[in-house]
Amino acid sequence: MICVSFITDYGLADGFVAACHGVILRTVPTARIIDITHLVPPGDVRRAATVLAQTVGSLPRGVHLAVVDPGVGTARRAVALHAAGGDLVGPDNGLLIAAAERLGGVRAAVTLPVPAGTPATFHGRDVFAPAAAALAGGTELAALGAPLDPATLVRLPAPHTRLRPDGVLEAEVLLVDTFGNVQLSAAGPLLADAGLRPPARARLWAVVPDAGRSGGASGDGTGDGTEAEAEDAGTDPATRVTELAVGVTFASVQPGELVLYVDAAGMAALAVRDGDAARALAVAPADRLAICRVGDAV
Amino acid sequence: MICVSFITDYGLADGFVAACHGVILRTVPTARIIDITHLVPPGDVRRAATVLAQTVGSLPRGVHLAVVDPGVGTARRAVALHAAGGDLVGPDNGLLIAAAERLGGVRAAVTLPVPAGTPATFHGRDVFAPAAAALAGGTELAALGAPLDPATLVRLPAPHTRLRPDGVLEAEVLLVDTFGNVQLSAAGPLLADAGLRPPARARLWAVVPDAGRSGGASGDGTGDGTEAEAEDAGTDPATRVTELAVGVTFASVQPGELVLYVDAAGMAALAVRDGDAARALAVAPADRLAICRVGDAV
Amino acid sequence: MICVSFITDYGLADGFVAACHGVILRTVPTARIIDITHLVPPGDVRRAATVLAQTVGSLPRGVHLAVVDPGVGTARRAVALHAAGGDLVGPDNGLLIAAAERLGGVRAAVTLPVPAGTPATFHGRDVFAPAAAALAGGTELAALGAPLDPATLVRLPAPHTRLRPDGVLEAEVLLVDTFGNVQLSAAGPLLADAGLRPPARARLWAVVPDAGRSGGASGDGTGDGTEAEAEDAGTDPATRVTELAVGVTFASVQPGELVLYVDAAGMAALAVRDGDAARALAVAPADRLAICRVGDAV
Repeated sequence: MICVSFITDYGLADGFVAACHGVILRTVPTARIIDITHLVPPGDVRRAATVLAQTVGSLPRGVHLAVVDPGVGTARRAVALHAAGGDLVGPDNGLLIAAAERLGGVRAAVTLPVPAGTPATFHGRDVFAPAAAALAGGTELAALGAPLDPATLVRLPAPHTRLRPDGVLEAEVLLVDTFGNVQLSAAGPLLADAGLRPPARARLWAVVPDAGRSGGASGDGTGDGTEAEAEDAGTDPATRVTELAVGVTFASVQPGELVLYVDAAGMAALAVRDGDAARALAVAPADRLAICRVGDAV
Repeated sequence: MICVSFITDYGLADGFVAACHGVILRTVPTARIIDITHLVPPGDVRRAATVLAQTVGSLPRGVHLAVVDPGVGTARRAVALHAAGGDLVGPDNGLLIAAAERLGGVRAAVTLPVPAGTPATFHGRDVFAPAAAALAGGTELAALGAPLDPATLVRLPAPHTRLRPDGVLEAEVLLVDTFGNVQLSAAGPLLADAGLRPPARARLWAVVPDAGRSGGASGDGTGDGTEAEAEDAGTDPATRVTELAVGVTFASVQPGELVLYVDAAGMAALAVRDGDAARALAVAPADRLAICRVGDAV
Repeated sequence: MICVSFITDYGLADGFVAACHGVILRTVPTARIIDITHLVPPGDVRRAATVLAQTVGSLPRGVHLAVVDPGVGTARRAVALHAAGGDLVGPDNGLLIAAAERLGGVRAAVTLPVPAGTPATFHGRDVFAPAAAALAGGTELAALGAPLDPATLVRLPAPHTRLRPDGVLEAEVLLVDTFGNVQLSAAGPLLADAGLRPPARARLWAVVPDAGRSGGASGDGTGDGTEAEAEDAGTDPATRVTELAVGVTFASVQPGELVLYVDAAGMAALAVRDGDAARALAVAPADRLAICRVGDAV
């Protein structure tokens, strides 16, 4: 028995996901397919790449099929990758890289040919699922297409993540989950390096990319909290400062309160207990936030 | 082959459900996982408990994994239960009890330990799925944790359901389904005890908990219908009376009409043929309704 | 191993889908169930029939279970059909016909009996899933019920599709998918017959059923594009003319532009690259559109 995981932006209202399941099961009737999600927002390669990378570690060894492919039918390559911990199949648009790295890094890669006459709009069914099925059935990667140099694979830009010399941690919003929990691009150890270990208090504010100033920089580190500092900063939302607890889980704070913690993927995250942190903070993926321990110079 | 059913409030947009599938299949590659639903509203233990209880009777004997767990990371216990008809795994917050009773009642229970270093926010992956996988793989319940007295398990409050001496049936809205059908907390036989067998006509009104009066009580039992009685009652929505048919199925009435029937779970329910009863009646789970046969003293 | 595909309008928030899975797996533990979709809008038999027909070709040979059944509990028949390429089970309301034709046409059909005492509202669990399970387990179709004449099966009206003598193609909107792509009722060869092969330009306008005129008829075939013609046509949306490219895939046009192409189901379709064509055109299933090659007499 072999597992094939499957992530797309196909949605759940059409027959697209089932068609791909069918293609796989016609080739390998004993394959087990684990649907990761098919509700990736249309074309959101970054979200799909992150969800895939954070899920593969919990899955059985096998083949990971990922199709978020706004460039279907263009010159973008279709690829299959081999990593120490499994194989990956999908478009060459950065979708597979983070997961491949979680699985030990890309050791070999091939370009999947698109058979003549293949419809130009459903490579999930016609190119990627057949390749995943072949791998699941035991075909060698090298038999699927021409080898390509892994160094030429398209990569997504790395999210902005840095610990400033003044102790302020800058990070991007990586994911917002079903509950509104906000995962940041900073891993747990970096949070610890910034002194943000529970129990503690922190300040949080938005960072405008490429702007030399931030609202936090106007604080004197001794202010009595959010309100006064927000007033100092005027009405620019990029300068509003929120104070919050650094905790271990949602229940480290009272219902309705905000908490900074290390989530189950090992990343810094923000949650509101019994609430929706993304809505409370009005943040979305790719937004930049700055965080520092209360009392540190900001 | 063993079946594991799975119900959560994880949603379908993240990788959480797949991570749990992965954990189970890594332990028991031959397990069959039946997803009941993952669209329980966040933290809605009552809804999940009801859906689970009404579904287990149709499932193969096996393990039932349920994770709606607003208290994750707190002192709430993680438990596994053994019933005559299967095993159940989840948080000790009342989620599993109704299903366990459908499966013959709790015969044994254990507290699941949380391994040191486990992230505090994803016990579905790290505590509950591993326990369900162990049970699916043949591990004895007693090997999973310290025994606990089933009498100490947390229970949800029973819904308000009673047949009044005057023949009026009072019940709560238990579930609203995808179609807007409104399931009540009264089982079919109680409906029959209230004289509400098809074909018949009934009156329905909202009950304000702990209020001594209801709009229905102002009716004289001979009124000519809804409109007049609603006027009698002024503008208090709790006193508006609706008249409806008691039927066998949606098609017992004309399109757009309301019908009271016994649903496929054996419970009293309200539907609008080709319509949405919950919207038409403006009711939601936990609302209390009163119903009586037309002509009976109200 | 046998595959059972499954499509309904049950939604994903209740336990209905899982109950049917359970019924099937209790009878045939080794069956593989492929969920096509359960998000068919309530009672939308036409959409379900189309999605099913366009998906079965990608599925393993097996049993196809379809339950979109607004007439549950009425006199509508419950049926099982045998086709050269598989078996189908569902209500006799037209849902199964197009798929059966894709599978070689109905060769035999039976009426499924509804056992006495069966709840009147969940034939998916109580009538259809048991029949699908029986077929999946090897029971002969003839053993499931009384034979019926396939000519008596209920059929959906065929969508309006015709190539007018003047070269204008009239078609209905058949499906709108998750991405907003608009599939028309005209198959690829008919598009070619209308001269609409890439690369080309086309004009598109709405057709009011049974009206003798259309906005396209007011064009002189030499106009400089959409805007002027739309003005000519006044404010009647049925007369607004859109000009668009005929291409091979989304990427045949620039982001935000509209393209007419043959989709992966072999049907004429309209898409906006990186956008939502159904929203851009304000069309919905069953709307009629007319298309002609630019320069042809309209």
